[in-house]
Amino acid sequence: MFDIVKSDLMLLETELLSVIHSPEKLITDISKHLIEAGGKRLRPALYFMCTKSRVADMEAIMPMAIAIELIHMATLVHDDVIDNAATRRGKATANSCWGNHSSVLIGDYLFAKAFSLVANKASSEMLKVLTDVICSMCEGEINQNRSTFQTNQKESDYLGRIEQKTADFIAASCELGGLAVGLSIDETKALREYGYSLGMAFQITDDILDVTASSEQIGKPVGNDLRQGIVTLPIIYALEHSPHKEELQEIVQTKNMSEEKIKRGLAILHETDAIEYSYSRVADYLQYARNVIPANILGEHREAFIAVADFVGLRNY
Amino acid sequence: MFDIVKSDLMLLETELLSVIHSPEKLITDISKHLIEAGGKRLRPALYFMCTKSRVADMEAIMPMAIAIELIHMATLVHDDVIDNAATRRGKATANSCWGNHSSVLIGDYLFAKAFSLVANKASSEMLKVLTDVICSMCEGEINQNRSTFQTNQKESDYLGRIEQKTADFIAASCELGGLAVGLSIDETKALREYGYSLGMAFQITDDILDVTASSEQIGKPVGNDLRQGIVTLPIIYALEHSPHKEELQEIVQTKNMSEEKIKRGLAILHETDAIEYSYSRVADYLQYARNVIPANILGEHREAFIAVADFVGLRNY
Repeated sequence: MFDIVKSDLMLLETELLSVIHSPEKLITDISKHLIEAGGKRLRPALYFMCTKSRVADMEAIMPMAIAIELIHMATLVHDDVIDNAATRRGKATANSCWGNHSSVLIGDYLFAKAFSLVANKASSEMLKVLTDVICSMCEGEINQNRSTFQTNQKESDYLGRIEQKTADFIAASCELGGLAVGLSIDETKALREYGYSLGMAFQITDDILDVTASSEQIGKPVGNDLRQGIVTLPIIYALEHSPHKEELQEIVQTKNMSEEKIKRGLAILHETDAIEYSYSRVADYLQYARNVIPANILGEHREAFIAVADFVGLRNY
Repeated sequence: MFDIVKSDLMLLETELLSVIHSPEKLITDISKHLIEAGGKRLRPALYFMCTKSRVADMEAIMPMAIAIELIHMATLVHDDVIDNAATRRGKATANSCWGNHSSVLIGDYLFAKAFSLVANKASSEMLKVLTDVICSMCEGEINQNRSTFQTNQKESDYLGRIEQKTADFIAASCELGGLAVGLSIDETKALREYGYSLGMAFQITDDILDVTASSEQIGKPVGNDLRQGIVTLPIIYALEHSPHKEELQEIVQTKNMSEEKIKRGLAILHETDAIEYSYSRVADYLQYARNVIPANILGEHREAFIAVADFVGLRNY
C-alpha cells in the first residue's frame, strides 16, 4: 500500500532507533522495545505522502515524521499504563515489563524528545499544529474516561470524542506534510480533511474490530471496550435499536464484568445491524476522503491516497 | 523576597487560571486544583527576575513563564501518580482525588498546553532549551528510579542525578529569562550558572528537610526518601561515615520498610555529621551562585538575586 513512501518509512525506522538513544540505558531499552513492537506507522506514512507533491529535502522533513511517531508512541505507552494493559499488538507492554513508574516517565520523555527534535527546525505554524493536537487528544481521552459506563450517549458524542482522540492527529499529520513542503493553504486544508475523514474511518473500524475480530487478529481480547465501559458506535447503535436494549443497558453499566456477561452483550449487539451500520459510516468517511484529494495529485501519487482509504476500509487487524 | 517580581507573579496566577480553561470540564477542574494548591512559583519567579535587566514587554515574556510553571506542574502530577502519593504540600493530590487515569492525562495535557503556548511565540533557541530540559528531567527521574535501594552510590552519582532532576530546569528558567530580553551570551550563561547552583542547593536542602523536618513543615512524612529507597546526600554521607554503616546499609536496601526501621535509619544518620556536611554543600553552591551574578546587575535587582540565594539556604519548608 505504501510503496510511494516505502523508502521514507525504512529511513524512519533507522532514525527512530537513533534518536531515542540515551545515556540512561533504561530509556534506550524501553524505547527500543516500543519501536521494535512495530505498528502501522500510519501517521508518518501519511505525512510523507502529503509531502510528495513537491521535491522534498529529506533532511528537512524527517524530524517532523520522527516527532509524529514518537508522540503517537508516547500516547500508547500512557494508554497502556492507564488501562493496565498487559499486551499490545500481541506483545508485552512497557508497563508489564518495566512497571508503571518507568512507563509514565518514558512517555514524558518521548513527548519531550519529539518536541526537542522539531523545536528549532519546524516553522512556528507547524509547531502550533503539533502541540494543539496533543491537547486535543488528551481532551478526547479524558472525555472518553469520563463517559465510560454511560448509556445515554448519542452518536454525536461518540463522533466528537473520536475526532479529538484519533482523527485530529491523523488530520494534523497530513496538514504537517503539506506545510513542510509549502503547499498552498487550500491544498493543505484539503489534505487535512482527507486525514480527518481517514482518521474517523480508522477509529470506527477499530471499534468495530473490537466487537468482531478474534484476539489473534487484533492482539487483545474481543469485547475489550465493553469490558472497560467504553461506549463505541456499534454499542450506541445497539443500545438504540436492540429489542433487548434494557438488558444491554444494564450490561454496559456493569463494572468488572464477567466473561459471560460480555458474551451476552456482544450477542445482543450482533443481533442488530450495528456492524453493518458502523461499516456504512466508515464507507461514508472514506468516500469523502477520496473526494477531497486535491485535483493536482495525479498518477501513482493519487493511487497511493486511494489505496490508503481502501486499506482503512478493509483492514481486519 | 520576590518583591521585584511580585506584580509579575500575581499576573501569572491570573494567566495560569485562564490558559487551563478547557471545554472538557474535568481538565479545568483538575488544573484549577493544581494551581490553587499553590507552590513557590520559584521557576517563573527566577525567569522574571532574569528579564529585569531590560525593559520587557510583559505580553511577550508572559507565555514562557506560564509554560515553565505548567511543565513543573505536569512533572509533579506524574510524580504523584508514580509515587502513589496521597498528599503534596499538605493537600490532596490529583491522583487521590481523580485517580491515576485522569492524572496521567492531565500531566500530558499540561505538557502539551505549555508547548502550545510558546510554539509560535518563543524563538527556536528558547524552545530548544525548554524541550531539552524536559528530556533531562525524565532521564534524572528514571536514573533515580533505577538506583533506588542501592547502597553503593557515590556523592557524584547523587549530584549527577539532582542536576538532571532539578538543577537543569532551574538553570533553564534563568537562561530563558535572559534569552527572552536578548541579553548577551555571557550574561545569559552567567544567569544559567546562577540558576544551576541555586537548583543544586535547592534540591540538597529538600533532601535534608526530608530527614529533618516534621511532616507539618513539609506536608509529607519524615524519612519519605528512605521509605522509597531514594538515596540522598545525607544518606550517602551516613553510609560512608557511620559506625553502624552495615546496619544502615541493610535498612536502605529494605523495601516496604516498617516505621520503626525508618526511625532507626534516621537515628543512625543523625549520629553522624550528615546534616552539617550536606548544609556545607548547600552553602558552597549558594556562595557560587552569589559570585556568578552578572556585574551589571545592581541595586535592588542584585539584592533580589542575593535574597533568593539566602532564602534557599534558610528555608525550612
